[in-house]
Amino acid sequence: MFDLLEKVNSPLDLKKLSVEELSAYATQVRDFVMQKVTQNGGHLSSNLGVVELTIALHYVFSSPQDKIIFDVGHQSYTHKIITGRVDGFDKLRHDGGITGFPNEKESEHDHFTTGHSSTSLSLGVGMARARDILNQDYNVVSVIGDGAFTGGMAYEALNDIGANREKMIIVLNDNNMSISKNVGAFSQYLAKLRLSKKYTAIKYNVKKSVKALPFFGDRFVRVLDRIKDNFKFSLIPNKMFENFGVKYYGPFDGHDIPTLISVLKMVKNTTRPVLLHVVTKKGKGVETVEEAPGAYHGVSPAGDKKSTPYCSVVSEKLCEMGESDEKVVAVTAAMSDGTGLTEFSKKYPNRYFDVGIAEQHAVSMCAGLQKAGLKPYFAVYSSFLQRAYDQVLSDICIDNRGVTLLIDHAGVVGGDGVTHQGIYDISYLTAMPNMTVMQPKDGVELKNMMQFSLTCARPLAIRYPKSYETEYSEHKPVDLSWEWIRKTNSNVYILAVGSKMLDIALKNDEANVISARVIKPLDEELLKNISSGHLITMEEGVLRGGFGEMVNAFYEHSDSVKVHSLGFGDVFFDKLEENAIFACAGVTETALNELVEKCK
Amino acid sequence: MFDLLEKVNSPLDLKKLSVEELSAYATQVRDFVMQKVTQNGGHLSSNLGVVELTIALHYVFSSPQDKIIFDVGHQSYTHKIITGRVDGFDKLRHDGGITGFPNEKESEHDHFTTGHSSTSLSLGVGMARARDILNQDYNVVSVIGDGAFTGGMAYEALNDIGANREKMIIVLNDNNMSISKNVGAFSQYLAKLRLSKKYTAIKYNVKKSVKALPFFGDRFVRVLDRIKDNFKFSLIPNKMFENFGVKYYGPFDGHDIPTLISVLKMVKNTTRPVLLHVVTKKGKGVETVEEAPGAYHGVSPAGDKKSTPYCSVVSEKLCEMGESDEKVVAVTAAMSDGTGLTEFSKKYPNRYFDVGIAEQHAVSMCAGLQKAGLKPYFAVYSSFLQRAYDQVLSDICIDNRGVTLLIDHAGVVGGDGVTHQGIYDISYLTAMPNMTVMQPKDGVELKNMMQFSLTCARPLAIRYPKSYETEYSEHKPVDLSWEWIRKTNSNVYILAVGSKMLDIALKNDEANVISARVIKPLDEELLKNISSGHLITMEEGVLRGGFGEMVNAFYEHSDSVKVHSLGFGDVFFDKLEENAIFACAGVTETALNELVEKCK
Repeated sequence: MFDLLEKVNSPLDLKKLSVEELSAYATQVRDFVMQKVTQNGGHLSSNLGVVELTIALHYVFSSPQDKIIFDVGHQSYTHKIITGRVDGFDKLRHDGGITGFPNEKESEHDHFTTGHSSTSLSLGVGMARARDILNQDYNVVSVIGDGAFTGGMAYEALNDIGANREKMIIVLNDNNMSISKNVGAFSQYLAKLRLSKKYTAIKYNVKKSVKALPFFGDRFVRVLDRIKDNFKFSLIPNKMFENFGVKYYGPFDGHDIPTLISVLKMVKNTTRPVLLHVVTKKGKGVETVEEAPGAYHGVSPAGDKKSTPYCSVVSEKLCEMGESDEKVVAVTAAMSDGTGLTEFSKKYPNRYFDVGIAEQHAVSMCAGLQKAGLKPYFAVYSSFLQRAYDQVLSDICIDNRGVTLLIDHAGVVGGDGVTHQGIYDISYLTAMPNMTVMQPKDGVELKNMMQFSLTCARPLAIRYPKSYETEYSEHKPVDLSWEWIRKTNSNVYILAVGSKMLDIALKNDEANVISARVIKPLDEELLKNISSGHLITMEEGVLRGGFGEMVNAFYEHSDSVKVHSLGFGDVFFDKLEENAIFACAGVTETALNELVEKCK
Repeated sequence: MFDLLEKVNSPLDLKKLSVEELSAYATQVRDFVMQKVTQNGGHLSSNLGVVELTIALHYVFSSPQDKIIFDVGHQSYTHKIITGRVDGFDKLRHDGGITGFPNEKESEHDHFTTGHSSTSLSLGVGMARARDILNQDYNVVSVIGDGAFTGGMAYEALNDIGANREKMIIVLNDNNMSISKNVGAFSQYLAKLRLSKKYTAIKYNVKKSVKALPFFGDRFVRVLDRIKDNFKFSLIPNKMFENFGVKYYGPFDGHDIPTLISVLKMVKNTTRPVLLHVVTKKGKGVETVEEAPGAYHGVSPAGDKKSTPYCSVVSEKLCEMGESDEKVVAVTAAMSDGTGLTEFSKKYPNRYFDVGIAEQHAVSMCAGLQKAGLKPYFAVYSSFLQRAYDQVLSDICIDNRGVTLLIDHAGVVGGDGVTHQGIYDISYLTAMPNMTVMQPKDGVELKNMMQFSLTCARPLAIRYPKSYETEYSEHKPVDLSWEWIRKTNSNVYILAVGSKMLDIALKNDEANVISARVIKPLDEELLKNISSGHLITMEEGVLRGGFGEMVNAFYEHSDSVKVHSLGFGDVFFDKLEENAIFACAGVTETALNELVEKCK
């Protein structure tokens, strides 16, 4: 069934196939990806969309000498298959298998460990410049989706690339999707290019005209230009990129391997930056996925655990708040499903804004919304909020704005790997004056915190991991105080932040357990009442600059209180599975029990 | 001399002047700004450039009902003069006077406290959307320079604005400068627009044709469009903005008040986003400034103190390193003068990259340069590096790249106010795994640290404030150890980070003084040898998550060592003068002496 996959263990093997065989290879890759993703979970739609494009890239270029850089990288499965990692798919996104994104440690064909959007042009032009300075000779190809093009740093790079004009190839993989349906004027512009009547005619013309020609370098671009004139190769207006100083070719059918090979061969030897506009279909080849690519963006492994996603709580509560308070507005950066805003967007479309993969803009836009009288909620994953550090500090905190950040995936994130861990936000948000940071113990408390946010006229961040397991029966009304969960006679006090930590803490049946649901400010009242004994802080975040250090600083001069902290040490955790990451970090029931034992 | 300035204490007063008087008013504003900036220091070139534009804006719009938002805001002096703050200029950028940037607390005409680039479109569209949701009726005008347009978040906003098309006016203040000469393809594109032969004819045509027409709303845009056709109003290609869904008009002469008034009146009542391209000259009206606007971007007050700027040390050392090591490359985000890269750029133009106001791109581009074999140095101000938090973590630290960040203005920054304080970087950089953070005691040590960086194959941040006063005579070779500066018999040990803290520490003549020149990792060897006594940490940065907390965490379980920390508490410091900020924060000789006394 996968005979061609078995034959191809490197890009060199791929080059041995005939162009006709490539099509059969593509089919096998697609079937293989479907099978493995269904089994292990992973990104489906985006990977199915770039099978042919990736094959063509490896057929024309010579990786790893030529550098192929995938933006974000959740579309790199075909690349991994071609570059000798077929076996790793048995444990795709699981420890012992391969990661779901390009990973420098995994292969010489992965030049960077990526996972965040819109970086490939910057990384690529850096390599291109180094190449020129070092008088080397290779190609740099950055493959970037139209979704990633809504991120500002792609423009920063384009602006720089177009002005300096180092040789570099940008492949714009235009599928009209980021994770959710794409938004923005740029997307509308691309749609115009795509929908031009001339598009359908193009692929035939290119194939017919170009194939007969010899391939040698720059002359080809001139040839291409002539074809453009003579054969109406691309008559569609494309001033956008040309104005940025980048030569534009397209659009091309991204599922037509011979066309892609021809075009890539042509631009291979140009001496200036070019952009190829390639149109692909997310989920290509699998009907159910093609029809609902958003639903298949990330697929959970079969038999996934039955914890409750916090985003469903957000969805419900935010709609309720939207109903009772007309000032409530919701903002997402291309993640309406992932963060639970879709229901709200349907009920209150005029109070909902999807700004694209543009966290910086989202945060400052919220500052504007608030200043002019509304109550904005920006729902965002923890690791993506990192993009807007400066805007949170400068535009939200300095003017003390009543903007609420709903920070999803705060804590350990399984499957996605090192770039997606949401373990830095406690550290960086608590260092910002005026900021209040909370974390609920369960869904009900998240709702209560969201209710609290309505009356909170200051910057507020509510962080929570992807999901929670225990629904607690008792809930103290949410204010800035902590909650005693269990009082014992022990001299050990566990200060647990969030659902997961609390679940672990309660498995130890000796110590006192307090839910430190407000990370900043500390509940100093409560802390002052603990005048002796051992405090164990537990947080799903880095120790450096984290909650533990805050508590420790509070007891700076106490001789009778000792603070111990469980959290994430000063290394990157390369593991892929949630439990493995917690185990690596030593944030476990066992570690806690040992610590409690030592404190007694 | 300033009779008109005395007459105008609000935008309402301005509206009482005739169009002819406005020109005289502009002259007075210009003379006044020159006088006050020469006396107090401040931003000169940018303010002289927008005198007429600002006057026209306030003449046509009604602030504060209409919202005028200046990007960055260092060009807001005329706005401050018109809105009743003339008297504050006697102490411009000094305590008791007015701030150098828009400040929400200072005036109802300043809607946001700003200082960082490229935010005005986001802030503006936030207000525009709130206005529409709340069924209110006012104009939002964002004034943004072409320099700020090299920042990615401006594109994130433009992409969003163009797609959703809320009514909003963007004034592109095109002076072909950010702080340094502008770079990038966008800038080249604007130059094309500006230099079109048709430009010179435009202003006359507009004035003649438009003035005679009645002004009422949307009809005007149609009229304008007709004029466009009939009078060759703007025949210059402008697909760029139109492709983003924003209606483009221009370019207009930004120093021609009647033209500006006509045009602003016309677009005032449009119902969709428009962009006016206005061409101004930085330093306009003062020959010396016009000729060297970069040199007059920021002017120091007369009789400024004679400390040595660290950027001059960087300039010298980086050139030396560039000479001896051909792999050294330098990167700036539109701050070549400010960060000391200008000399390098002249000597090694092919190893120097000014990427525009694009810190995100700069950092990831460095990752690419390093991956492909070079040794990159990104010189950047501390508060601007905040923009690239995610890129430093994801693209530099995760892959453990040998990129060096030269972080200038790290610490207290006088004059510029709350948005420019470089006091967060210790906190956020030390929370990133793989990152080493250093701070020198003087210029020689900075050079030694830069020399050390050449052999450091990991992420390295060297932070330093604007300048230093003491040049020390002794220097230990730079490695990861700390330096004993003074040994005494006291049980008090001061761990001072950086020149300023060390200068203060040495004024106390009792305590031991150690230069904690490596902030991360801690010199644990040295700390272990201090088994009892009092440690006082001193840092030019926030206490939350800072060096003091790191040291405190190290001594978590020690009964015999007490840690005390001097640094910046959890509030924003609104003061403008360096000494006032230190005093407010309690980071002073007096505070230290009291603490030492208490510890004895």
